[in-house]
Amino acid sequence: MYINSNFDGGNIRCIRCEDAEDIQLEIVKDNNSDFYQWFYFRLSGAEGLDCNLSITNASGAAYAGGWQDYQVVASYDRDFWFRVPTQYEDGHLTFKHMPEYQSVYYAYFAPYSMERCADFTGWALGDPKVNLAVLGQTIDGQDIDQLVVGAEGENKKKVWVHARQHPGETMASWWMEGFVHRLLDENDALSRALLEKAVFYIVPNMNPDGSKRGHLRTNANGANLNREWLEPSMEKSPEVYLLREKMHELGVDFCLDVHGDEALPYNFIAGAEGVPNWTDHLYEIHHRFGNALMKANPDFQMTKGYGIDKPGEADLSICANYIANEFKCSAITLEMPFKDTVETPQPVQGWSPVRCQKLGESAIDAIYEVIDDL
Amino acid sequence: MYINSNFDGGNIRCIRCEDAEDIQLEIVKDNNSDFYQWFYFRLSGAEGLDCNLSITNASGAAYAGGWQDYQVVASYDRDFWFRVPTQYEDGHLTFKHMPEYQSVYYAYFAPYSMERCADFTGWALGDPKVNLAVLGQTIDGQDIDQLVVGAEGENKKKVWVHARQHPGETMASWWMEGFVHRLLDENDALSRALLEKAVFYIVPNMNPDGSKRGHLRTNANGANLNREWLEPSMEKSPEVYLLREKMHELGVDFCLDVHGDEALPYNFIAGAEGVPNWTDHLYEIHHRFGNALMKANPDFQMTKGYGIDKPGEADLSICANYIANEFKCSAITLEMPFKDTVETPQPVQGWSPVRCQKLGESAIDAIYEVIDDL
Amino acid sequence: MYINSNFDGGNIRCIRCEDAEDIQLEIVKDNNSDFYQWFYFRLSGAEGLDCNLSITNASGAAYAGGWQDYQVVASYDRDFWFRVPTQYEDGHLTFKHMPEYQSVYYAYFAPYSMERCADFTGWALGDPKVNLAVLGQTIDGQDIDQLVVGAEGENKKKVWVHARQHPGETMASWWMEGFVHRLLDENDALSRALLEKAVFYIVPNMNPDGSKRGHLRTNANGANLNREWLEPSMEKSPEVYLLREKMHELGVDFCLDVHGDEALPYNFIAGAEGVPNWTDHLYEIHHRFGNALMKANPDFQMTKGYGIDKPGEADLSICANYIANEFKCSAITLEMPFKDTVETPQPVQGWSPVRCQKLGESAIDAIYEVIDDL
Amino acid sequence: MYINSNFDGGNIRCIRCEDAEDIQLEIVKDNNSDFYQWFYFRLSGAEGLDCNLSITNASGAAYAGGWQDYQVVASYDRDFWFRVPTQYEDGHLTFKHMPEYQSVYYAYFAPYSMERCADFTGWALGDPKVNLAVLGQTIDGQDIDQLVVGAEGENKKKVWVHARQHPGETMASWWMEGFVHRLLDENDALSRALLEKAVFYIVPNMNPDGSKRGHLRTNANGANLNREWLEPSMEKSPEVYLLREKMHELGVDFCLDVHGDEALPYNFIAGAEGVPNWTDHLYEIHHRFGNALMKANPDFQMTKGYGIDKPGEADLSICANYIANEFKCSAITLEMPFKDTVETPQPVQGWSPVRCQKLGESAIDAIYEVIDDL
Repeated sequence: MYINSNFDGGNIRCIRCEDAEDIQLEIVKDNNSDFYQWFYFRLSGAEGLDCNLSITNASGAAYAGGWQDYQVVASYDRDFWFRVPTQYEDGHLTFKHMPEYQSVYYAYFAPYSMERCADFTGWALGDPKVNLAVLGQTIDGQDIDQLVVGAEGENKKKVWVHARQHPGETMASWWMEGFVHRLLDENDALSRALLEKAVFYIVPNMNPDGSKRGHLRTNANGANLNREWLEPSMEKSPEVYLLREKMHELGVDFCLDVHGDEALPYNFIAGAEGVPNWTDHLYEIHHRFGNALMKANPDFQMTKGYGIDKPGEADLSICANYIANEFKCSAITLEMPFKDTVETPQPVQGWSPVRCQKLGESAIDAIYEVIDDL
Repeated sequence: MYINSNFDGGNIRCIRCEDAEDIQLEIVKDNNSDFYQWFYFRLSGAEGLDCNLSITNASGAAYAGGWQDYQVVASYDRDFWFRVPTQYEDGHLTFKHMPEYQSVYYAYFAPYSMERCADFTGWALGDPKVNLAVLGQTIDGQDIDQLVVGAEGENKKKVWVHARQHPGETMASWWMEGFVHRLLDENDALSRALLEKAVFYIVPNMNPDGSKRGHLRTNANGANLNREWLEPSMEKSPEVYLLREKMHELGVDFCLDVHGDEALPYNFIAGAEGVPNWTDHLYEIHHRFGNALMKANPDFQMTKGYGIDKPGEADLSICANYIANEFKCSAITLEMPFKDTVETPQPVQGWSPVRCQKLGESAIDAIYEVIDDL
Repeated sequence: MYINSNFDGGNIRCIRCEDAEDIQLEIVKDNNSDFYQWFYFRLSGAEGLDCNLSITNASGAAYAGGWQDYQVVASYDRDFWFRVPTQYEDGHLTFKHMPEYQSVYYAYFAPYSMERCADFTGWALGDPKVNLAVLGQTIDGQDIDQLVVGAEGENKKKVWVHARQHPGETMASWWMEGFVHRLLDENDALSRALLEKAVFYIVPNMNPDGSKRGHLRTNANGANLNREWLEPSMEKSPEVYLLREKMHELGVDFCLDVHGDEALPYNFIAGAEGVPNWTDHLYEIHHRFGNALMKANPDFQMTKGYGIDKPGEADLSICANYIANEFKCSAITLEMPFKDTVETPQPVQGWSPVRCQKLGESAIDAIYEVIDDL
Repeated sequence: MYINSNFDGGNIRCIRCEDAEDIQLEIVKDNNSDFYQWFYFRLSGAEGLDCNLSITNASGAAYAGGWQDYQVVASYDRDFWFRVPTQYEDGHLTFKHMPEYQSVYYAYFAPYSMERCADFTGWALGDPKVNLAVLGQTIDGQDIDQLVVGAEGENKKKVWVHARQHPGETMASWWMEGFVHRLLDENDALSRALLEKAVFYIVPNMNPDGSKRGHLRTNANGANLNREWLEPSMEKSPEVYLLREKMHELGVDFCLDVHGDEALPYNFIAGAEGVPNWTDHLYEIHHRFGNALMKANPDFQMTKGYGIDKPGEADLSICANYIANEFKCSAITLEMPFKDTVETPQPVQGWSPVRCQKLGESAIDAIYEVIDDL
C-alpha cells in the first residue's frame, strides 16, 4: 500500500500508512506560509480494503470551518471525480472508502494540472480571434500566460478575467474552460455579439507556481496574491505586479476574478462595496450581472454570500477592491463551492468540473447583460 | 455525370444533365399536392467542372418569393454544408459551382434523414428521464414517436413541442437535437430546474412520410398537416389526429411548434393573436418567451415576422391557433430561415445545423422564463 | 405494442402482435423471388414485458439449416447489438426477450443502412488518394458507387474488392469500413506500402436496392447477383453488368468478394478450384492469402469451409469463378458468419460489427502477402 | 520574446534570447551526469518572426553523431508535432523557423508528460484484465507503476515489457500506448489469443524522475539505468533494482525493452548475442520476432542496426543482455529513430507519435509469432 503525492499539484504527508484501517495523513503547508487546506494524493494497493483515512492536522487548516459538511472527491481514472463520505470530528477530517481498483486518487477538489493549462492555452491559440501575451515569469520560472480575445477598438470595452490567484481553488480553472470555449464558439450568437462590444484579457492561471507545488493560497514565496494588489513587487508577487501593470497600461472596464470558497455551499459573487469610489451605478451593474447569471444558471444564487464591507472599509489589497477603486469600474469576485450547492444538489459528484464549465458558459450571458453600461 | 435523388429525403427531376454548363432540373411536387420547394440531390462526376445548375420550375414553387436572396447549400461529406452563389431570375433558380470532389450534394437546407431521427430517438431513450410513446403509424406505415421527458406530477406543467409538420423544414430537426440534448443534460442547472416544474411531450418528427419522400409541406396523402388541426382524420392526417387526441387526453399548458420559413431572413415567433380565446395574459407570455429567447440568443429577434391576425380571424386549422384556443394556453410557432439571419450573418454556412441546435438550446431559457406563469 | 419495419433495410410481417407472450411474425420474401431470411424490425411499447417472438415461416427460409445455433441480434440504441437466446424448433425461429426500454430493434445481423453507406463514401472521398466512379444506376435508380484508391500506373496491380452482392449480408459492409479505413491510413506503413504496389477498385455496396428493400439475396428484380456473372444484363442485373464491363475495360489481377454465410460458424474463404483455368499458382496464392489472414487475425481460419468444386465443374455464373477463369487471376470469396466463431467465441455480441471491421483491417496483411506474385 | 522550459520534461538554457535572428541555447546536462541531448522548450512572442535558433553545445551531446540529418520537432497545440529544417554545423545544431502563432514548442522528439503517463495508467486500470503493482518509489519519490495484464496460470508465458529506461526516448511511451491499447482490445482476436497464452508485466515508464526532470539518459541520481542491471541498488538505481527483484521472483520467458536511438534512421532490434547463455534457439526466436514485426509493419526492418557482440563479450549490465543470460530467454531491445525512417519516409512529421503507436500495435503480431516457442 502506497500513498504518493509527488506529482503536479500533489500535497500530502504520510504519518501512518501501514494499515488500511488507520491511515493518518497531514496536509503540507504552503511554502513560506502557514496556509494549508489543499490536498491531492494517490493511494495504491488498497483495492477491496476498507480504508479509513484521516487528515490529522485538519483543524489547523486555513479555514477549518469549511470542513463542516465537506466531502472528499475521489477518482480512479483521473477524469470522473465522485464524493466519498467524510466527517470532520475532533479536529480530524476522516473519510472511509473501499477502493474498487488498485489505484485511487483523493483530493480537496478535482485537480487541474499545469499540463492541462498548457494544452488549453495551445488549443485556444489556434483560434484566429485569440492572441497570447506572456506577462512575464513566476518565481519558479513559469510563464504567466494571458489570452487576448477579440480585436481591440475604440468603442470596445476592456474586460479582464482571471482565475487561480489561489492555486488550490481548481474549480476556477474548470470554470475558465467553459467560459473560453463558449466565448470562442463562432456558432454562439451571444459570444459573437459580445466580441463585437468587448475585448477580453484572460489569465487562465494567475498562480502557476502554487498550482504545481500543491499550494492552497500562495505563490512560491508564500504570498497570498489576493492581498498583494496595493503593493505588489517583482520579488514577492510578480504575478500581480505584472498583471496590474498591464491593467494600468490598457485600462479596465470590467473585471471578474474567479475563486473557490472553502465554507459556503453556494455559488455567489462579492462586490467592492467598501471602496471609496463605490457608486450606485456600480451597485446596479453588480446586481444586474448577478441576476443575469442566476437566471441563466440556477446553480448560481444571489441570496447567500459574504458580508458586505462598510463604506470605505474595504481592503484595497484585494483584487476586486483595488480594481473597482482604481479604475472606477465594476470588479466582481466569483466564488464557487468546494462542496455542493445545497439548493441544487447533485450528490454523486457534488460541485464538479462539468458544472464549473457550465457556470463559465453562463458568465457570457451575465457579461452581455451589462456590457453596454460599463 | 449523374444527378441522383433516390435516397431518403431526396427530390429532383433531371431535365437536361448532359452538359455541366447547362444542367436543367425540376423539383417534384409533393404527392397528391401542388406544393414543392424542397430539393435535395447528388451530382457526381463533375469534379473541377464549371457547373451551372438551374431549377427551371422555381417560379411555381410554394413560396416563390422566398427564392429572393436565397443561396443553395452544398456538401461533399454530408456533414458540413456551405452556401453556393445563387440567383433567382426569370423564374429560374440558378447556381454556379465548381465541385472540388467527384460527389457533391445540393439541397434547399441541410437534410436530416429518418435514419438520423431513429438514431436520435435511440440515444434519447437511453436516458432514464425519457419514455417513448408511439402515437401510431403514418400512412406509409412509419411509427410516429413521442418522447416523454420528465416525471408527470400534480403540479407539473405540460409542455408540448413538435417539429417537422412541414417535412422540408429540416432546420426544425436540427433545432430539436439541441433542445433535447440540453433538456437531458444533468449538469445543466436550468434544465434540471425546468424538469422539476414541467413534463415534456416531444414529437421530433411529425411527418416521417413527407420527410422520407422528399416533400416540402405535406404528408404521404398530400395533406398540409398545419392546416389539419380542426378536423384531422386517421385517413388523411393520422399524424395530427393522433397527437391531438393525446393532447386532449393529457392536457396542454404550453405548445411550441417548430418550423422554417421560406422568405424571411430572421428567426421569429408567431402567436395566436386572432383566436377567440386570446387574452392579455397570453400576449404577455408570448412576449416574455420571445424576449427571453432573444436575450439568450441574438440570432433570434422580435421585430420582424408575420403580420398579426385580427381578433377572431385566426385560422383554427393551424396548430398553434387550434391549441391556444382549445386549451386556453400559450401556443407558439417558431420559425427559422432557409437563408441566413440578415442581422447576424455567418456567410459561409448561412443559417446552419449548428446554429439551429444552439437556438434549440436557448429555448430552454425561454421556456424557463414563463414556466411558472403558464 | 407495435412492430414496425418501414425503414431502410427493414423486413418483417406481423401476424399476431397483440400479446407480448405470443408474437408471431413472418419474413417477407425478396421481391420477385422466393428467397428470404433477412429480418430487421422494431418492437415498441414492450418495456419490461416477457416477450416471446416467433418467426413462423423460418423453415422456408433460403437456408433453413442456418437457423441451428443461431442467435438473434438486438439493440436499443441502434449502435450496440447484442445476442438474445434463440431456438429453432418445429420450423419456427423463436426468441424470448424482456426489453429494458420502450424501443428495441431485432435483426438477423447488425444492419447497415444506405445512409451510412453514403456517409462512408462521403468520408472516403475527402482523402486525396480516393476517386469516385459512379458505375451507373440500379433498377430502383440508386447510384452504384465505386471508390478508386491509389494512383494507377504501369506496374500497379489491379485489385477489385466488393461487398453486399447479397444485401442481407451486412457484415460485408462493416468489413468494408475496416478495410478502407486502414487502407487510407497514412500512418499505417503496410497500407502505404500496398498502395505503392496496387490500385484498388472498391464497390462498398453492390446491391443498394436489395439493401434498402430489406432483401436477403437479390436485387430489386429478384436476381441473385452472384449467379449473374456469365450473362448479366442491364435489365435484370445492371449491378453486375456494369462492374463486369469495367473489369474487362481495366483488367483484374486480384478480386475479393465479401459475403456472409447463414450456416457455418466460421470465417473462411472459398476459391475457384473448379474453373477450367485453375492453376497451381492460383492454388498457392489462395492459400498464402488465407494463411496470412489467419495469422493476422485468429478469428479467421482455414480448416472449415465449403466443399471444393471438382476440376471443371465450377459454376461460372458465380463472381469469383467467373473472374478467376476469365482473367486467369486469383479471385476469392470471403465468408463471415451470421452467428459467432465457435473457436474464438465472444458470447455477448457474437460475430459483430467491430470484429468485422477488424477482419477488414487484417485483409491488408493478407493482400500484402500475395501482392508481388499476382 | 520568451524561452521557457520550466515544465514537465522541459530542458533548455537560454544564452542569448533578445534577438529572434540569433537565439543561442544550451541543453542542460542530466543531473549528476555528463549526458545531454534531450531538449524541450517553448518560445513565445515570436509570431511571424524569422527565428534562428542555435543549440551551441550540441557537439558535446551524448551522441553528437546523431545530429546528422536530424530535424527538430515543433508544435503549436502540443498535439501535432511537425519537423522544421535543421542543420548541424560547426558543433551547433541550428534551426530556422517562422512561428505562425505566439507560442510554439520545440523538442528533440514529441514529448510525453508524467500527467499523460498517469492518465494512461488510470485508463488501463479500468479494464478488468489489468492489475496494478507499484514496484516502489524513485529517488524523487514518484511511484514506479507496473501493469499486470492477463491472468497468471501454469502454462502462461511471462512476458516483460518496459519503456523509458532512458527518459529522453519518449517514442517508447508513444509505442507503449499503441501496444497496450491493442493488447486490451477485446475485439482484437490476436490480442485475445495472446492473452490465453501469456501474462504481461508492463512498466510504461521505468524512469519517471528523468522524464520529469527533462533528462536524456539517467535517473535523478545520474545513473544510466540500462547499465545498472548487474548491480542495481536502492540508493543509486531503485528503478532497476525493484524490477529485477520482481523478475527473479516471478520468472521471465520473454523481455522487450523499448528505446530510441539518436543516430540510426531505422526501426530495428538488438539481441543478446554476446551473452554466455546465448543459443541457436534464442537466435531463431530473435529473428522470427523481427521478421514478423517487419511483415506486420514495413516501418520496421531487419537489415540495419547495431553491430553484434562477439560471443561472451556482451555487457551484462545492459537490460536485455542481463535478462537473456540470467533467465536463458529471449530478451530484445527495440530501437526507434529520433529522425525518420529513411526507407519509408513521412516528411511532414518524420517518425511520429502515431507511427510509434502503430509499431506498438504491430508488436502484438511479433510476440504472437514466437509465444509458443519461448
